[in-house]
Amino acid sequence: MDGMVHVYTGNGKGKTTSAIGLAVRAAGAGLNVYIGQFVKGRKYSELNSLDKLDNIEIEQFGKKKFIKNNTEKIDIKKAKEGYRKIEKVLNSNYYDLVILDEANIAVYFNLFSVEELLDLIEKRNQEIEVVLTGRMANNKIIEYADLVTEMKEIKHYYKKGITARKGVEN
Amino acid sequence: MDGMVHVYTGNGKGKTTSAIGLAVRAAGAGLNVYIGQFVKGRKYSELNSLDKLDNIEIEQFGKKKFIKNNTEKIDIKKAKEGYRKIEKVLNSNYYDLVILDEANIAVYFNLFSVEELLDLIEKRNQEIEVVLTGRMANNKIIEYADLVTEMKEIKHYYKKGITARKGVEN
Repeated sequence: MDGMVHVYTGNGKGKTTSAIGLAVRAAGAGLNVYIGQFVKGRKYSELNSLDKLDNIEIEQFGKKKFIKNNTEKIDIKKAKEGYRKIEKVLNSNYYDLVILDEANIAVYFNLFSVEELLDLIEKRNQEIEVVLTGRMANNKIIEYADLVTEMKEIKHYYKKGITARKGVEN
Repeated sequence: MDGMVHVYTGNGKGKTTSAIGLAVRAAGAGLNVYIGQFVKGRKYSELNSLDKLDNIEIEQFGKKKFIKNNTEKIDIKKAKEGYRKIEKVLNSNYYDLVILDEANIAVYFNLFSVEELLDLIEKRNQEIEVVLTGRMANNKIIEYADLVTEMKEIKHYYKKGITARKGVEN
């Protein structure tokens, strides 16, 4: 069966966590999962857990801290490295689910073009299910996708403190 | 620090998977997580993966298949059992994150009342972070929560077949 293309976008919580939850579910069903994270280079708490799951592989293609509107050569270099790696992953016969975390952000900040991203997905082994996450999904991606979910923040009230809680926010 | 109350609602994908992703992240940070699933009694694929993570505990309080608008005594019985168990969980000093999966649906179908659910959350050990998932979140829950995200389906095009893919949809 051909794999679908899912997009998780919007300004609300749950885009990356949802993709990770999907990875955990897929791994539980015996599928092989690859997660490529653009724009991220920091060791998020989830990596400790995902390391324990044999059929989930995760790689990061970003600096420790990506600064919006201040794209550096190193950001582009790392994103292109990721692009080339994912090209191989998406043409293999090994993976069933491939998650391109923050791919929308990578396009939004011109680390690669939307045409390049579409090309990557279009030329893949069509059996692979693909998930793209990140705010500001390009319209061409939304058009191409089979399934688009917007995570919409409808309330965010920091009544109990501003600081992010370790293990929940990051 | 006091824990926040998150709600994931809406008709789009990613409510439960997002909560599971959050559980995986929290467990990776060394936090102790409890997931209580209302209205569900089927062995979802994710359970195989979550079993491998020591500090995530998951229990189900539903029949194999919940039939909307045809609530039976057994549905209510199981939900109340869950309610009592979760009451203990939320008053312990052990858990850091407690996920009440499909709690909104349980209220919507009157398995327990919204007042009962609010009572459960309000009387908890306030250090515990709580996540409620499910469509049709009651307005009183939305008012009470610190953080509400709506998962909004903006495109769902079954161009490649109607059947759900094992490990992705369930």
